[in-house]
Amino acid sequence: MMRTRPLKVALLGCGVVGSEVARIMTTHADDLAARIGAPVELAGVAVRRPSKVREGIPAELVTTDATALVKRGDIDVVVEVIGGIEPARSLITTAFEHGASVVSANKALLAQDGAALHAAAENHDADLYYEAAVAGAIPLIRPLRESLAGDKVNRVLGIVNGTTNFILDKMDSTGAGYQEALDEATALGYAEADPTADVEGFDAAAKAAILAGIAFHTRVRLDDVYREGMTEVTAADFASAREMGCTIKLLAICERAEDGGSVTARVHPAMIPLTHPLASVRGAYNAVFVESDASGQLMFYGPGAGGAPTASAVLGDLVAVCRNRLSGTTGPGESAYAALPVSGMGAVVTRYHISLDVADKPGVLAQVATVFAEHGVSIDTVRQQGKDGEASLVVVTHRASDAALGGTVEALRKLDTVRGVASIMRVEGE
Amino acid sequence: MMRTRPLKVALLGCGVVGSEVARIMTTHADDLAARIGAPVELAGVAVRRPSKVREGIPAELVTTDATALVKRGDIDVVVEVIGGIEPARSLITTAFEHGASVVSANKALLAQDGAALHAAAENHDADLYYEAAVAGAIPLIRPLRESLAGDKVNRVLGIVNGTTNFILDKMDSTGAGYQEALDEATALGYAEADPTADVEGFDAAAKAAILAGIAFHTRVRLDDVYREGMTEVTAADFASAREMGCTIKLLAICERAEDGGSVTARVHPAMIPLTHPLASVRGAYNAVFVESDASGQLMFYGPGAGGAPTASAVLGDLVAVCRNRLSGTTGPGESAYAALPVSGMGAVVTRYHISLDVADKPGVLAQVATVFAEHGVSIDTVRQQGKDGEASLVVVTHRASDAALGGTVEALRKLDTVRGVASIMRVEGE
Repeated sequence: MMRTRPLKVALLGCGVVGSEVARIMTTHADDLAARIGAPVELAGVAVRRPSKVREGIPAELVTTDATALVKRGDIDVVVEVIGGIEPARSLITTAFEHGASVVSANKALLAQDGAALHAAAENHDADLYYEAAVAGAIPLIRPLRESLAGDKVNRVLGIVNGTTNFILDKMDSTGAGYQEALDEATALGYAEADPTADVEGFDAAAKAAILAGIAFHTRVRLDDVYREGMTEVTAADFASAREMGCTIKLLAICERAEDGGSVTARVHPAMIPLTHPLASVRGAYNAVFVESDASGQLMFYGPGAGGAPTASAVLGDLVAVCRNRLSGTTGPGESAYAALPVSGMGAVVTRYHISLDVADKPGVLAQVATVFAEHGVSIDTVRQQGKDGEASLVVVTHRASDAALGGTVEALRKLDTVRGVASIMRVEGE
Repeated sequence: MMRTRPLKVALLGCGVVGSEVARIMTTHADDLAARIGAPVELAGVAVRRPSKVREGIPAELVTTDATALVKRGDIDVVVEVIGGIEPARSLITTAFEHGASVVSANKALLAQDGAALHAAAENHDADLYYEAAVAGAIPLIRPLRESLAGDKVNRVLGIVNGTTNFILDKMDSTGAGYQEALDEATALGYAEADPTADVEGFDAAAKAAILAGIAFHTRVRLDDVYREGMTEVTAADFASAREMGCTIKLLAICERAEDGGSVTARVHPAMIPLTHPLASVRGAYNAVFVESDASGQLMFYGPGAGGAPTASAVLGDLVAVCRNRLSGTTGPGESAYAALPVSGMGAVVTRYHISLDVADKPGVLAQVATVFAEHGVSIDTVRQQGKDGEASLVVVTHRASDAALGGTVEALRKLDTVRGVASIMRVEGE
């Protein structure tokens, strides 16, 4: 079975993930060869800073000219672990044009230009694999694309960003505020110096777009994903959550509408019951719940980031792509045949937890309840707490559309007796 | 892309799983066609009782002659959901000889004859897929075979039998004894009239053999798997477990030895800490932990049995096999290149919880401790409880080989002061 000409791999990027990919390719060369059916050889490594010493990577393989590397023509597989839109997009496109298949860990690029990249791969009979783009080492893309190919996925509900989960877990377990927990995450290396992409939900939104696209066989772009960060979650929110038997997680939620005619994708902080398996996902771990017609509820759990785990996902793809190349075929490409419309946030139906600061006088509850009723939002429970002439009202609703809830809140703000809307949080996973 | 000649599927068995496969093939025909790239057609259904009414299955497709069906020559894929060794084995072999690929849910057969069946598939350029054979709908075979193909798996630790997990969960949560919990499982349909295959660990052992084989790229047969059922687990064991901050699960454990030179596979009840994710797997759910060099700890969770979940796994395989057929290729076959020796139970290294009934007199603890020391088994904690001239000693050890522990227990039984060994349970997942 074993052929002698090795498959040649070009590595674009040699940071935390790339160096780990190179290391495993070297130390586990025999295993990889046995699993692929041919040896696999690192043929070039494109980096920005060639002077940096890279242990285990022969200096003659290192180049700053990534374009020339992907144009060489003898490269079988390009592994792209640079991240960001450019130059990654141009390099991947050029790689396809020169006959290579591509393994990428680039969630931002896939979420923005997945359709065009898939088309380029297909035009050149090449593979585009990207297991590492979502939830690090956790096998998720492959199970969704292949294991569930005979099932109908209705919902994907997940913790797909380790940084924010670390922060929220810290707030939950220690009572710390957001800033304090963020500082600790930064000190421990879980958050970057500029944490915007994580805490504002951009990273999770890119992953949600990719997951929704695969789950629903429909193109979902980053712009289609409703996004709300978690910087405004407070210790008080966690106290409210606990009173409900819940905790707070930043969730990526991709749903098929109940009538099946459309889908939604969103990222926002939400309360989930402590009994839900996602509630016990600690630290920087990721976990994704998948609900399907036939298989019911599945959960995939593991490290969502880090050099070695991400490299594991990259190498799994590399083995698959190399095997495909040897047998002269390609794996499953984009599946967007369902082409369902992607609805905006207004169409999302869920439950809400709303804290209002209100005047402490008779009739306020009746007024507030009337506003909810007028907007067709049914109330599940109300809790009233008085404090020095002021009072707070905590309302938990039954399922209602985000549009109806929005109208309700707008009307509530106009009531003289409502001093302010202290917080609105969605309740998921029930 | 779409070709018009449909791929023809023969279904062997039309029980709980088979009828669900047939139903989904009919109701989701358009989705399956889009995902495969060609329509897929149910060409025949082999059953034992042809007179039984099967809703949605045209009578003219039903036959009692399974052999003739797999010999037809126009069948692309045979789906085997009969179970058991014969006639399943002969039918699968005949299917390969007549040009078909096979999707099977047959754990017993795969665990006993996996190597021969894989060889038959390879000889005829056909696929043999069996995601449904382990842990029902949970994608596990594909992630292990493909997603982790670039990683080195060191341990697979899982709850792979829903019946026993239901019984143990019931004992844990209600304090019920084994028989009472089994009766409830039977009444609710979670246990079969003859529960032997489940409660004695045969079912889990077959799955452990399959998982170990794939995880370690080594042939592991059912006979290689150490097996201990859970019929002797008592309410007292659960009380002991709780004192340790543990619960009790029937675990399938596949491990690479620390020196990497051999592997073991075993099924037995074990204590695991309540903080371990497997401890919170409730009811008839399954979950499997996978530990690898690069990806760290992954967990896969979901329904481990049932018609629809198992059918989902079968159909995922069916889509993959059909796609392979259309592109004239086959998926990854058996990977047994590592060919590591499979060690017996004596080589397993773990911790132990031992309850001894002893005479309540001075010097007993010293005697007992001496026996442990003589066999090289280091004690972590000892708890002594006196009651009316009798006493009990609970010893928890550090890690030791099963052989050393066995020798220790044999020597303990010979001590005059030891009235009996009340229970020995392994402690895992720490």
